[in-house]
Amino acid sequence: MRTSIATVCLSGGLVEKLHACAAAGFDGVEIMDADLVAAHESPEEIRALCDRLGLTIELFQPFRDFEGVDEALFADNLRRAAAKLAVMQRLGARMMLVCSNVATATRPEPEVAAAQLGALADLAADHGVDIAYEALAWGRYVDDYREAWRIVQLADRPNLGICIDSFHVLSRGHDPSEIQQIDPDKLFFLQLADAPAMDMDVLSWSRHHRLFPGEGDFDLTTFLSHVILAGYRGPLSLEVFNDTFRQTDVDRTATHAIRSLRWLYDRTAALNGWEELQLDPPQPPKGIDFVEVAGEDLSSVEQLLSQLGFVFGGRHRSKAVRLWRAGEARVILNEQDRTPGARLAGLGFEVDDAAGAARRAVEIGAPPVFRRTYAGDYELPGVAAPDGTEIYWNSRPAAESWAPEFEGGADPGTVDAPAALRGIVDHVNVAYPWQEFDEAVLFNTSTLALDSEPASELPGPRGLVRSQVMRTADGAARLAMNLAPPTAPLLPRHIAVRVDDAVAAAAAARARGLPFLKIPSNYYDDLDARFGLDPELLGRLRELDLLYDRDGDGSFIHFYTPIVGDVFFEIVERRGGYDGYGAASAPVRLAAQRARGE
Amino acid sequence: MRTSIATVCLSGGLVEKLHACAAAGFDGVEIMDADLVAAHESPEEIRALCDRLGLTIELFQPFRDFEGVDEALFADNLRRAAAKLAVMQRLGARMMLVCSNVATATRPEPEVAAAQLGALADLAADHGVDIAYEALAWGRYVDDYREAWRIVQLADRPNLGICIDSFHVLSRGHDPSEIQQIDPDKLFFLQLADAPAMDMDVLSWSRHHRLFPGEGDFDLTTFLSHVILAGYRGPLSLEVFNDTFRQTDVDRTATHAIRSLRWLYDRTAALNGWEELQLDPPQPPKGIDFVEVAGEDLSSVEQLLSQLGFVFGGRHRSKAVRLWRAGEARVILNEQDRTPGARLAGLGFEVDDAAGAARRAVEIGAPPVFRRTYAGDYELPGVAAPDGTEIYWNSRPAAESWAPEFEGGADPGTVDAPAALRGIVDHVNVAYPWQEFDEAVLFNTSTLALDSEPASELPGPRGLVRSQVMRTADGAARLAMNLAPPTAPLLPRHIAVRVDDAVAAAAAARARGLPFLKIPSNYYDDLDARFGLDPELLGRLRELDLLYDRDGDGSFIHFYTPIVGDVFFEIVERRGGYDGYGAASAPVRLAAQRARGE
Repeated sequence: MRTSIATVCLSGGLVEKLHACAAAGFDGVEIMDADLVAAHESPEEIRALCDRLGLTIELFQPFRDFEGVDEALFADNLRRAAAKLAVMQRLGARMMLVCSNVATATRPEPEVAAAQLGALADLAADHGVDIAYEALAWGRYVDDYREAWRIVQLADRPNLGICIDSFHVLSRGHDPSEIQQIDPDKLFFLQLADAPAMDMDVLSWSRHHRLFPGEGDFDLTTFLSHVILAGYRGPLSLEVFNDTFRQTDVDRTATHAIRSLRWLYDRTAALNGWEELQLDPPQPPKGIDFVEVAGEDLSSVEQLLSQLGFVFGGRHRSKAVRLWRAGEARVILNEQDRTPGARLAGLGFEVDDAAGAARRAVEIGAPPVFRRTYAGDYELPGVAAPDGTEIYWNSRPAAESWAPEFEGGADPGTVDAPAALRGIVDHVNVAYPWQEFDEAVLFNTSTLALDSEPASELPGPRGLVRSQVMRTADGAARLAMNLAPPTAPLLPRHIAVRVDDAVAAAAAARARGLPFLKIPSNYYDDLDARFGLDPELLGRLRELDLLYDRDGDGSFIHFYTPIVGDVFFEIVERRGGYDGYGAASAPVRLAAQRARGE
Repeated sequence: MRTSIATVCLSGGLVEKLHACAAAGFDGVEIMDADLVAAHESPEEIRALCDRLGLTIELFQPFRDFEGVDEALFADNLRRAAAKLAVMQRLGARMMLVCSNVATATRPEPEVAAAQLGALADLAADHGVDIAYEALAWGRYVDDYREAWRIVQLADRPNLGICIDSFHVLSRGHDPSEIQQIDPDKLFFLQLADAPAMDMDVLSWSRHHRLFPGEGDFDLTTFLSHVILAGYRGPLSLEVFNDTFRQTDVDRTATHAIRSLRWLYDRTAALNGWEELQLDPPQPPKGIDFVEVAGEDLSSVEQLLSQLGFVFGGRHRSKAVRLWRAGEARVILNEQDRTPGARLAGLGFEVDDAAGAARRAVEIGAPPVFRRTYAGDYELPGVAAPDGTEIYWNSRPAAESWAPEFEGGADPGTVDAPAALRGIVDHVNVAYPWQEFDEAVLFNTSTLALDSEPASELPGPRGLVRSQVMRTADGAARLAMNLAPPTAPLLPRHIAVRVDDAVAAAAAARARGLPFLKIPSNYYDDLDARFGLDPELLGRLRELDLLYDRDGDGSFIHFYTPIVGDVFFEIVERRGGYDGYGAASAPVRLAAQRARGE
């Protein structure tokens, strides 16, 4: 698989973009005309730079509003084309992208477009250039790849073929299976972009909201299967216009981009059974092995855990690390980190093949993390997520692998005190600034093998919070991702522990002096209005400052600890088949946290 | 005119919102149920606070998904309603907003909706509450105010009427003139919101992109005329859901909001000739009197002006202020300001009635600015724009008003040296962070009497820049507004001076040693490809680093000085009827400024 990316996907000047593409490992690039026009380097200098960086110039793009015009405009368009062909010759580019006419076409007949494109192809042939004709989703007369292919067949020139762009095909709902009916010698180029499902005009959708493969709602594995099965032999090239990527660090975006291509090709190969081409297989988590909180002094986190009913699980025999547990929920407090406060620093996942999961992550492009270990310590393979959180995988039970390294705590083999909390990690709530959200979605998809639930939006006192849960189908591992409004600080992260009886857990925690988040009385009046709750349950909820939600399948009772540093804890109980996260109560919780100055 | 605003328009907690509404001068509020639910204050406390602040609780909202349901659900909906009516009684709210059913309606018959709403009205009557029924644009069966009115007529209860929301009427393209056919006693409530013209699903459009009146594309003056002529006697109430306003400072947004209502009512009164109700009439600028740059030490700005060919116009006789001019373009350098750097601090507009323009601005809600003047100095009335820029108005020529206070410069009565620059201010380019953009549009509309050109977007090296020009119809005053991407710093502001011969101006400036922004050679190759320019003109453009654009009406030649502090200058020439701003060259200019580290 050859990889390529359009320079328009990245921020900065052309030279910076090319360096970033090469550093990320791309084989080639599409040079955007506007990027070259704004560059101080001559086409010859750009060509030499690409040579030195080992980047092939796969395409020069776009040439617009060419075909389907009257004779006078056609003559001027050929003159424009000749000038750009001269630039391409200096650049050493061998293929020009011609987009279907949006603005100036007045002749709908395919024969006219074919004749004009044929003349362009003949002119290009003199420069050794191929023409790849692309149907834009909003083209004046040509807005469907099948129509572009018909025109290319009519024109019948050896150096005229078509460019297929996943966005233009899938945004219009056109059937991609017919790509397999196209002569493979005429499939000149392939551009890939994903996008969220949105009901808006297709031009704005394309210009602002394209995403890298794996981040949106398009079925790109099926799409790519059709293109490869059709016999396409060119590069897989990303063309993603997105307001976010245009602003973010060019090297980071390029790394992010190539990860999306590797993931897509892997998924496509897996779908089609192309065994020899796959990465190590994805390892969907079977559970959360541990959650790690780091900071210089975590004694106040320890106090919260103790008040919640967590049991001290011991000190690590060789490091400044402590373990707390509540049944199968394990929290590691790591004081090797000298940063003040407390932050969610790591997540451990239970998988079938930990080494394979880590290999896959590195193959896709995540940097491995190094963790100092001493003789006899159990080694967990891991990588850094884009936001720096360390991800570890374990294919053995904690009690038989790393947990025995912790000494001096309650023996997990014996029975804990009756009031001890017993649970598992239900979900971990992580927050991202808006410009890092899509990258995190791709990481969670490609390396953690999690799937996206539909996104929702919650009104907080500082603006709307976009929330998206990524999870395994069975719910064994769930990450609730929050996207903060641009002007608001990041929301703190939190760890939700699921127990059998949240009301009892709350009562016990209160008895141990846990300061509860005070929930307004109005909230309970509203609960009663909405659900007509049993007065005794309502009384207990009100008394213990518990939050409640209900859907057709069951109900949800939960409460929050205060925030320490940048983390806090939530205790949740799921009754019946309730599968949500209490989103309806989130505005109340956010307002209550804000009222407490958190 | 009574003014009101829904608490959902503002950020923060309910108590903060109420204080901000009162401080901005609103007469009343719509209490959003969710705001009350999240508040720690009881309904009685909120009622007492509103009393103390002098705010009427005009409406309690929303009550959702009530009508058009089966019998079992109807019974539960009545139970829900009774609980909310009890809350309203504690709150002292006398009107409940019922939105047309979106989620649970299964009975499309208007008779069913009417019977169920009638029963609700009867229940509400026991609490002394009126029900205002509103057709949401995305209601399941009722999505048109005329259908809501039909149902209200069928139900025929004294305390059941309708609520009209401009968004739900205008977003669907429904004819607002039929509002005049509604019984005025049944027009219970009016909600006002503007919105940009957008092609997207109406629910997302409503939830994220509503704007205050005067900021969007709806014809709200005609809309409001129909409502008032229909005999509506309630308050004008704003209900604007917008991702930006939810995040910005609550007091600033409330001030911004009431300005929009005052402007709208003024325009509506003017449209209908309700003379006694109007503010002072708008004063569209006839030209730009001066531009003021402030800073501690402006000698480097002075050097730029001198190199451009501006003529020194003298020192102010009593202040640390200097005047430079180029024909009718006057730049005031104000060193009374002790902030380092240089910033665009003020704009003077030529109008027919300066005192009236300033009175109108203050009536709408802009704070007047105080400028220290000495005996005999000419006084210019002025106000502060939302971003702090000082706006002044002058109804007399500069030479007969403030300009004679400047001494020791070239006598404006005598002929300047042949190479001196002569021009006028063509436009001023101002930049806003994204969260202040809409507020600036409203200020420019309501107090400067400028109109919006369609917005455009320019790809810059740090992300897309949204650009919108606001101007008088004749172009005598133009503000080009740029909206920076959230993660990018504000673009510097600049002052564009229009001359008759930009090529000669550039040659003269270069001879005086002005450092030009270096434009890439590739740009000129592209100009030639696009326009097939006369080789001599192309050669001059390339030699002098000039930018060029052409449209159907004429052409545009321009160049930029370096940036000093946060300002720079542009010299422009308009040939023929060219009326744009060279937007096609902006990416090249932005990239060139970035390459120079600006």
